[in-house]
Amino acid sequence: MAEKKHTPIASLGQFAFVDRLCAPFAPLNPSTVKGCGDDAAVIDAGDKYMLFTTDLLLEGVQFDLTYFPLQHLGYKAVVAGISDILAMNGTPRQVTLALGISSRFSVETVEQLYEGVRYACRDYKVDLAGGDMSASVNGLTIAVSAVGEVAKDKIVYRSGAQVNDLICVTGALGGAYMGLHLLEREKRALDGHPNPHPKFEGYEYLLGRQLRPSARLDIIEELAKIDLVPTSMIDITDGLASEVLHLCKDSDKGARIYLNRLPIAQQTNKMAEELHSDPVVAALNGGDDFELLFTVPLARQEDIFALGIDVIGHITAAGSGVALVTPDDQLIPVQAPGWVVRGDEPASGEDESPADAQ
Amino acid sequence: MAEKKHTPIASLGQFAFVDRLCAPFAPLNPSTVKGCGDDAAVIDAGDKYMLFTTDLLLEGVQFDLTYFPLQHLGYKAVVAGISDILAMNGTPRQVTLALGISSRFSVETVEQLYEGVRYACRDYKVDLAGGDMSASVNGLTIAVSAVGEVAKDKIVYRSGAQVNDLICVTGALGGAYMGLHLLEREKRALDGHPNPHPKFEGYEYLLGRQLRPSARLDIIEELAKIDLVPTSMIDITDGLASEVLHLCKDSDKGARIYLNRLPIAQQTNKMAEELHSDPVVAALNGGDDFELLFTVPLARQEDIFALGIDVIGHITAAGSGVALVTPDDQLIPVQAPGWVVRGDEPASGEDESPADAQ
Repeated sequence: MAEKKHTPIASLGQFAFVDRLCAPFAPLNPSTVKGCGDDAAVIDAGDKYMLFTTDLLLEGVQFDLTYFPLQHLGYKAVVAGISDILAMNGTPRQVTLALGISSRFSVETVEQLYEGVRYACRDYKVDLAGGDMSASVNGLTIAVSAVGEVAKDKIVYRSGAQVNDLICVTGALGGAYMGLHLLEREKRALDGHPNPHPKFEGYEYLLGRQLRPSARLDIIEELAKIDLVPTSMIDITDGLASEVLHLCKDSDKGARIYLNRLPIAQQTNKMAEELHSDPVVAALNGGDDFELLFTVPLARQEDIFALGIDVIGHITAAGSGVALVTPDDQLIPVQAPGWVVRGDEPASGEDESPADAQ
Repeated sequence: MAEKKHTPIASLGQFAFVDRLCAPFAPLNPSTVKGCGDDAAVIDAGDKYMLFTTDLLLEGVQFDLTYFPLQHLGYKAVVAGISDILAMNGTPRQVTLALGISSRFSVETVEQLYEGVRYACRDYKVDLAGGDMSASVNGLTIAVSAVGEVAKDKIVYRSGAQVNDLICVTGALGGAYMGLHLLEREKRALDGHPNPHPKFEGYEYLLGRQLRPSARLDIIEELAKIDLVPTSMIDITDGLASEVLHLCKDSDKGARIYLNRLPIAQQTNKMAEELHSDPVVAALNGGDDFELLFTVPLARQEDIFALGIDVIGHITAAGSGVALVTPDDQLIPVQAPGWVVRGDEPASGEDESPADAQ
């Protein structure tokens, strides 16, 4: 008998692998408008589309409870869920939580998590529509699902970008990733200290980006007010590089991103300097920013500027590649960061990988 | 400063705790018809209701990969998801998977899991509408979400049971639990054996119940054909006891269940005898049967018998309690099994707890 093949997932890349897994599934139901391969599933509900998405947050990968307050984690779980609905130009309406909890967790700790969920539900006007709970062998697992809706003529996919469209990004990038590094640094510095007092003064912005992120419901509402429907959109949860590649692949286009137009906050630059790292790498490959990346026709440039949204580049023809343009007009191809698969044993040397933040 | 309270979740009970957690969430959206507290969330989609649910399957709790083939696990994950949609009298349409995967898993193993998902999607005519993937530190985590729909006048909640309604149950109970025990027994017997050959002859039914369960879409379709809308319904995933208590609590009624009417298969009885255990305990507290428990008006008794569905008891007035009736007319109060929370360290002595199967 032939030896069983054991191909590492990293050799294919996460996204290519998911595409391959989903490929054999031909839709059987006419209500399935869009299945795998966008931020949320799109379901025909008669006079509108329903949107539907599930995210998994695992202890030791997406969060470390050494420094992540449970209240903030509950808030962030909701933000992660509804951000995928916003990325389809949808309005989030409901979320559900399913928790896996080990005996380390008490009634009080789970209540803290739900308090954060409640704050987020209030801030984004969504309803908690289900709260399941199961025992877990190892730590805390959170599955957060979100449901939203969108008018059929307002839905935005990843695939609609056109040549010469402007590439727009909300907020600033790389802050959540630098916040994570700050937290990891203080954790290492204070490890074993009986009464730890981490030093966070002057870095409140970075901490907030990592521990209390925002979903950009405000932007979706602003765009609706001026009747601007992006041609394509995605939320930035895995870093700008990965998301630009998704938009270009699904739209079958290329892109030019101007390096000196990347929106990076002052504290992100300062922290990068302290760590002797490049803030551009944080913006390109750092996770958890929950900003929106979208494209609009060139004719809407003034509208975008009026909203204070940054234009970082433009869409180019199919086959032209996705590249960063340096201030001296050099082109650097944009590459997707690798898929970091964790072992069942703690792996060493992965601390500095941006994929840890995702 | 006062010492922080650390109340064990087991002291409240899982379901009471979830109720308490969800209580402060008042719905903000008119489309939220039913939030926490039923098998699925109910969302108003205009001319019909959309149903929406997420289940978490964790390695070491819901499944043990020592004996659970990944293809079967993929199939079972879909069954678990759509069973909650059926329990609302809905038609399942879409499922999504979100996986957490450690480096132990290769491209080939994940493909096996998806093969099982594909078989289940084909059998139940549902579409895979999303497949997310994330790195995990510990083993395999599966979040399966299901979406379905139901006409507004056909939806069935847990809360509609009326006095004198018949309590009906599809299929036979306790088989999946006994299948789990069989698998655990062979695992222990063959632990460390270089070339294990487990003995499963004569137990194919029990193995099938545990490893390749069915969701009762057939029953929902049969009931629709004869225009029979149950007054209340729930799927049996945590054992009959827990589910009867849910129906009675939410309907504010009591119930009498006749012990000698519990549908228990021959192999379940035989296995229980071998293990010196009580097959009734398996039926009451064993998990993963994925049968439906529902109530219908007494006037529909003939219709239920014609479908070959068992009537196991009837609904009684509020305050009359939920009790088993023995053949000599003794009443035994039905109690919910406890919530078993696992430690981060492997706990001993929990092997025989029915809650392990859930």
